[in-house]
Amino acid sequence: MNHLKETTKSSEKLFSGRIIDLYLEEVELPNGKTSTREIIKHPGAVAVIAITKENKIVMVQQYRKAMERVLVEIPAGKLEKGESPEVTAKRELEEETGYTTDSLQHLISFYTSPGFADELVHLYFTEELQILTEKAELDEDEFVDVLEVTLEEAQQMIDDQRIFDAKTAYAVQYLQLKLALQK
Amino acid sequence: MNHLKETTKSSEKLFSGRIIDLYLEEVELPNGKTSTREIIKHPGAVAVIAITKENKIVMVQQYRKAMERVLVEIPAGKLEKGESPEVTAKRELEEETGYTTDSLQHLISFYTSPGFADELVHLYFTEELQILTEKAELDEDEFVDVLEVTLEEAQQMIDDQRIFDAKTAYAVQYLQLKLALQK
Repeated sequence: MNHLKETTKSSEKLFSGRIIDLYLEEVELPNGKTSTREIIKHPGAVAVIAITKENKIVMVQQYRKAMERVLVEIPAGKLEKGESPEVTAKRELEEETGYTTDSLQHLISFYTSPGFADELVHLYFTEELQILTEKAELDEDEFVDVLEVTLEEAQQMIDDQRIFDAKTAYAVQYLQLKLALQK
Repeated sequence: MNHLKETTKSSEKLFSGRIIDLYLEEVELPNGKTSTREIIKHPGAVAVIAITKENKIVMVQQYRKAMERVLVEIPAGKLEKGESPEVTAKRELEEETGYTTDSLQHLISFYTSPGFADELVHLYFTEELQILTEKAELDEDEFVDVLEVTLEEAQQMIDDQRIFDAKTAYAVQYLQLKLALQK
């Protein structure tokens, strides 16, 4: 793949935040010319497809400042330093939904925005949920509503653009495929 | 949804790039407390599921600096100012693959990283491809290989993490669901 590789000539950290860092890099292109790349470094994240005994999908509704609107998403959260994705997934499920599980199946991991960011989302599946007797605490700047919806309701939420993000769209399609393959 | 809303107290643009802008915002949370949000503004993007007469999926392989590696993805690119997504989709298909089409079906749009970015990807489908007689020019800092793969090969590329991004994972699953529903 060397005919595609971009070599770093310089890398400058322009911003170091609570969640993301921004780098501006000068790269040598495969043809020897120079260009710049704007790169966001992110710790990575997890997301969980959680199915209740009643065959509902557990969703969280929260305000997303980047879009200035409320979105409905599957439970998710970013990795803490040194935390394994499976531990994060269980923790975020507990904090955001009040459910817990001892059975998380890893489905897939994917980069969300490979053109400018290294955020990797690890997606898990569980249909073995227990209700937490003592509710876990959300982060102090997190406010969410928990919704439990059928697959049909989730599809309607996609049509209505209440569900409007890649991981949740992938999750709904995953469940549709699972159902289609069972038939 | 007012019990979830975050109100902007201040917004500072920290970086203005070729592709992304970075804002640091101070927000008032639903409980009256204050927090900060790191926000990436992005012009949005398109991606195309393009199927050849031989029932192969057209993919592009390119170096992604954020991950420091080559990824295999469906053809995609960012919106130019004032350009409609469908026009962008046709242009990116032409530039990246050497195919064109007059038939683009909009499947879904989704935000890629709602936690910190407003990038919206518009996903299209076509199975009516024509080969361009005169090849369109790539952007001068873009270098890609075109691959045509079967659905089974695409699934293997996911397993091998050569396909490793959300929009392409969604696209492969879309084709698997389409196939399952036809049976």
